[in-house]
Amino acid sequence: MQAARTLEQTECHSFSWQSSFSQKRRLMDDSGIRAILGIASRPGILSFAGGLPDPKLLPLDEISECSRTVLSTYGHAALQYGVSDGVNALAHELSRLSNRKGADCAPLNIIPTTGSQQGIDLIANAFLNQGDPIAVTSPTYLGALQIFSAFEPRYLQISCDDEGPILSDVEAALKQRPAFFYVVSIFQNPTGITISRKRGEAIVGLCHAYDVPIVEDAAYQELFYDAEPVSLRVTESELLRASGRRYEDDGRVIYLGTLSKVMSPGLRVGWIEAPSAVVRAIACLKQGTDLHSGIMNQFIAAEFLRNHADEYWKGIRVAYKERRDQAVYSVKQHLGSLAQRCTSPQGGFFLWVEVDQKIDTAQLLPISVERFGVAFAPGAPFFASHATSNAMRLSFSNLPVEMIERGIKSLGEALHSQ
Amino acid sequence: MQAARTLEQTECHSFSWQSSFSQKRRLMDDSGIRAILGIASRPGILSFAGGLPDPKLLPLDEISECSRTVLSTYGHAALQYGVSDGVNALAHELSRLSNRKGADCAPLNIIPTTGSQQGIDLIANAFLNQGDPIAVTSPTYLGALQIFSAFEPRYLQISCDDEGPILSDVEAALKQRPAFFYVVSIFQNPTGITISRKRGEAIVGLCHAYDVPIVEDAAYQELFYDAEPVSLRVTESELLRASGRRYEDDGRVIYLGTLSKVMSPGLRVGWIEAPSAVVRAIACLKQGTDLHSGIMNQFIAAEFLRNHADEYWKGIRVAYKERRDQAVYSVKQHLGSLAQRCTSPQGGFFLWVEVDQKIDTAQLLPISVERFGVAFAPGAPFFASHATSNAMRLSFSNLPVEMIERGIKSLGEALHSQ
Repeated sequence: MQAARTLEQTECHSFSWQSSFSQKRRLMDDSGIRAILGIASRPGILSFAGGLPDPKLLPLDEISECSRTVLSTYGHAALQYGVSDGVNALAHELSRLSNRKGADCAPLNIIPTTGSQQGIDLIANAFLNQGDPIAVTSPTYLGALQIFSAFEPRYLQISCDDEGPILSDVEAALKQRPAFFYVVSIFQNPTGITISRKRGEAIVGLCHAYDVPIVEDAAYQELFYDAEPVSLRVTESELLRASGRRYEDDGRVIYLGTLSKVMSPGLRVGWIEAPSAVVRAIACLKQGTDLHSGIMNQFIAAEFLRNHADEYWKGIRVAYKERRDQAVYSVKQHLGSLAQRCTSPQGGFFLWVEVDQKIDTAQLLPISVERFGVAFAPGAPFFASHATSNAMRLSFSNLPVEMIERGIKSLGEALHSQ
Repeated sequence: MQAARTLEQTECHSFSWQSSFSQKRRLMDDSGIRAILGIASRPGILSFAGGLPDPKLLPLDEISECSRTVLSTYGHAALQYGVSDGVNALAHELSRLSNRKGADCAPLNIIPTTGSQQGIDLIANAFLNQGDPIAVTSPTYLGALQIFSAFEPRYLQISCDDEGPILSDVEAALKQRPAFFYVVSIFQNPTGITISRKRGEAIVGLCHAYDVPIVEDAAYQELFYDAEPVSLRVTESELLRASGRRYEDDGRVIYLGTLSKVMSPGLRVGWIEAPSAVVRAIACLKQGTDLHSGIMNQFIAAEFLRNHADEYWKGIRVAYKERRDQAVYSVKQHLGSLAQRCTSPQGGFFLWVEVDQKIDTAQLLPISVERFGVAFAPGAPFFASHATSNAMRLSFSNLPVEMIERGIKSLGEALHSQ
């Protein structure tokens, strides 16, 4: 056993996996999402931390029916390898959905992804070189910042008001020719704010003027509780049509969609809508990344969109609207003047509260959990600069109304204790 | 409509998506797999090109049963978000499988991936910096080369004989401290060759002596048609045990497994086995990449492994063995002296043929398809250097025996025509 002896001789080496890891591994800090999900799952805690749909509202019966139909209709084709471009039936349903909203979308403008998290990752890999400038809002989705930060980008940060990104900030950022402008346009994660129609037109105009692609993350689009929102994707299509042009030729908006909030996160079905030159580039990167997303799940999603989505979405809008109303009411009642700013979202899962500048919400969180039994997402990780420490994101999606009332009351007590 | 006017003004810009793309996008060339899959799917062609399981052999009934069980047993939990580390039930089944073979594996040594293609991509991202040296065999899996090439690595190429990588080449490569040694150890894609037990011990010993991680891709491990093969992962566990040490502390073999060839490619269930420090690093990268792989599919895979795998695997080994036997026989009969070297795989999907040095198989392919109705995978893309032009990979997995006979006869005619 010469080899065994060799292994014994190596015993004294000081091998370390940590020192073997790449720079990218070191740059990708997962503490944000991971810590939030960890806290959210502790028993007995009323948690406004995670951005999860209520599992009891997931369409179990519909998905069971779709699974049976897919396996009996498509059979082995649902279980075999596919192409990176995805399942035709799904691209067809998604382009129909997009056209119905007023966009100009063909199936070749669609590529399914493993949730929209993979959509962001693929777009980052397709467009970003190490150290490139990119434009983001302050705050923005922390899972996107986690991806971008591995590229050590120069962040061009854009402040927001209640109509969305502030135009002077947008223009100042675009002048520096970022690789793209990433923006959660509708019921934003984390603030709940939606870009107004007028602001949207101006942003699209600026991005065309400076030739900067917009990466529009619209994960919460279907979850409207008042008027149906308009995406930048649709605004651009309308503006292009008005000047006799087509999305495929002249579109600059790359749209990220997902069924995670409005069907099932566990199926991991998201998609990218883009001019086909971008879709082809993404398909090529996706092939190296995982060949393609799950085929059976893509068929199930297509079946769900065709037969169940409209009705199911109506139902969950009613259920989540009640929670949104309760959350807004309870925040007014129990936080009162403790909340220096509080958003009133027209949809989605989140509202955003800014408290006294003296309070660091990241430091408040363990106290709030241990002594008051209530959790929230501290605001700092949602800023590229981590500069704002007195904000918090409250997710009202995964608690029944009476728990929302009780939880926000406890949160008020936690804030009062400071 | 000031914004609309803005869009009109931008009409004369010479915007190009191509020039917006990243260096990585440009480096990731997908022509290899994509071209092969394209040719494989033309109607009327007898194709030895793709490495696909026969769809008629996929366990449709078993997977249908598992889907029903999972949705009725786990319900909403199968459709909700999960953690990047994967579903416990699956990690448990996979560690049991690994221990049964003689490895030393706990559930915390396992992380599920979206097929083993994503396993390779995650490992590349965890260990590789731009320009790093990595050791690979010549030839090796082209999908891995596609991933690695985006890092512009310095390839340290290792030649193989019928027992696997040649030791003097391995040692010469390891001396240059590559980030890792990637090797398809069992029924290799593309050659079908398996590393012998003795060669495996020596390779493991060398990697320990030089402190270089081995990335063992064992995608075809369960498809043995003669004796059951032994992975480097198991060889290392045995050597470590012999010197009183544990995989978790001193393992250097990172193992990539997949159910794509032995259950369903369309479900995209693969996994990485590694010491937990590596699993944690991979989980962190995976979170940024796609949060996690499909939850329902992970539960279905666990259910399949528990209740169906052993019996199903016995059945497909018999079916594919018959095809392997036919392929080896037909090559001898119809290619004869045209084949200067031909492997005799003990399992898997592939055999490898080297023909006269004058023949460039990439140039032969279109002639072979158009005039003789038969397709194969040219050998060059399986080499980091693309230097060998007179080889071809023949996949016998997706053709009935009579088609194998006819196809190889036609291939002989195509070669004769040169």
